[in-house]
Amino acid sequence: VILTVTLNAALDVTYEVERLVVEESNRVRSVAQRAGGKGVNVARVLAALGHDVTATGLAGGATGGLIRADLRAAGIAEELVEIAGESRRTVAVVPDSGSGATLLNEPGPRVSALEWERFGGRFAELAAGAAAVVLSGSLPRGLAPDAYAVLVTGARAAGAWVVLDADGAALRGGVPAGPDVVKPNHAELAAATGIADLGAACAALRDGGARAVVASLGAAGLAADTEEGRWKVGPPVAVAGNPTGAGDAAVAALVAGHVSGRSWPERLAEAVAVSAAAARAPLAGDLDRATYAAVRDRIRVIPWRDA
Amino acid sequence: VILTVTLNAALDVTYEVERLVVEESNRVRSVAQRAGGKGVNVARVLAALGHDVTATGLAGGATGGLIRADLRAAGIAEELVEIAGESRRTVAVVPDSGSGATLLNEPGPRVSALEWERFGGRFAELAAGAAAVVLSGSLPRGLAPDAYAVLVTGARAAGAWVVLDADGAALRGGVPAGPDVVKPNHAELAAATGIADLGAACAALRDGGARAVVASLGAAGLAADTEEGRWKVGPPVAVAGNPTGAGDAAVAALVAGHVSGRSWPERLAEAVAVSAAAARAPLAGDLDRATYAAVRDRIRVIPWRDA
Repeated sequence: VILTVTLNAALDVTYEVERLVVEESNRVRSVAQRAGGKGVNVARVLAALGHDVTATGLAGGATGGLIRADLRAAGIAEELVEIAGESRRTVAVVPDSGSGATLLNEPGPRVSALEWERFGGRFAELAAGAAAVVLSGSLPRGLAPDAYAVLVTGARAAGAWVVLDADGAALRGGVPAGPDVVKPNHAELAAATGIADLGAACAALRDGGARAVVASLGAAGLAADTEEGRWKVGPPVAVAGNPTGAGDAAVAALVAGHVSGRSWPERLAEAVAVSAAAARAPLAGDLDRATYAAVRDRIRVIPWRDA
Repeated sequence: VILTVTLNAALDVTYEVERLVVEESNRVRSVAQRAGGKGVNVARVLAALGHDVTATGLAGGATGGLIRADLRAAGIAEELVEIAGESRRTVAVVPDSGSGATLLNEPGPRVSALEWERFGGRFAELAAGAAAVVLSGSLPRGLAPDAYAVLVTGARAAGAWVVLDADGAALRGGVPAGPDVVKPNHAELAAATGIADLGAACAALRDGGARAVVASLGAAGLAADTEEGRWKVGPPVAVAGNPTGAGDAAVAALVAGHVSGRSWPERLAEAVAVSAAAARAPLAGDLDRATYAAVRDRIRVIPWRDA
């Protein structure tokens, strides 16, 4: 089983409006909601790829209850640990006009020391049975920046392969514990290391403890710096669409490739194809199968020599 | 006991933001939420005025659960009937700048025929023990425009004094059943009757079945057309502030005056004072006691002769 961890799980709410007028009363035509947060998106993609996945993390209140119910409805095993605070909502207000969505992101709950300790116990049990552990997204208020280091250490001790997908202090705090992969985008990589150059920044994270760095480069694909080699992987065509789920889909594909015993070049090609398929699906965590089929065989993995 | 009915109960959510930027991602600094809907606001004011009040209506889903919990936390007896649909939220996005709030109003649940029948049974039990019944606000989807007529008829048969505060088709549908009071504002009165003139529109609703019409006129106070006489009531000073709860507070005061055996002029003066106190409180259903004390003795009730 693959374990995904979402410490700041969310309910992603979409409000369809004719148009959004500031300082006025706006009628919401329809409300759609589903479980979200980066680790939840990874779990959805893994389930869509046919893998056995368990989603853990923290959830609380009425919103936490809706997150759990939606995961179960999607057929994903849910082992979220209950907290006293109310889980956050992200509200996307989407106008008919086709112009961009307006996002309202709630701050999310504060997690107590006792709740974090309780989560640690449950995490140890779940990680003990997992081939791979994926740690994704921001840390909720109340957790120290080394929270991911604690989980990386525990998961590796249990024998799991660990991917960390976070940014800022949460990424910097987790790297020294030696995750098998970290997956920042270029801007996150630059911010976490203070180094603008892609190759030098990847090298800095590996020097800091990460065993491999896979950097997502948007339409340009992925760059990977690993113990087995360095590669760049490009999609054969630029794929426009929803970027939110594309990075999470790439993480899911890397993990799926690992547990299936694929080589790094195979994992990376798969990650770009699945990421393109996610970018073309309307909701994060879903895949557009036609896009996957159209691009998969045309992806090129080439040695990365430019640094 | 006074029974308030809120068929489309809501959770009123307030998002505090630095500023709201359309088509961008906005960080919500704080989330506040409480039970709302016009009947709930009336119940809060009645409780604040020291009356024994029970809040019924329809509520469902996780949001319904939060509405119930908030009513109980406020010390209001809650007898909302469970429905399968998810109760609506109203989201007010309030910027630091002090510029106006942006409102997002969810459409609310659809009520089934079976749910309405089940509500009717519970309503009959509750109305049998009530001195007064207040029917407030919009009808949820799935209910016929005569829904309020059914409740007015049932409440009057049980011996209760009935106030109907609704607009449009819900008001027109309820009037023929003979509510003791209807309380539209001037625009609602004009829309429901097709008559712009205040006096003529009040007369039309009384001809249609309403025993009394109390029209709220914003800063100009109230106008009342009753079986005992016709009056206009003005606040001694213009009171600026939050209009949402002012009308609901006026309804609460009219009911409180009735159950306490006050005359129409006394009820009307009290309604204007309580309404001013509600307009000055930041949240609907709350009262600013200093405003009440400052205006109460200066309110003038005068015969309404101009029609």
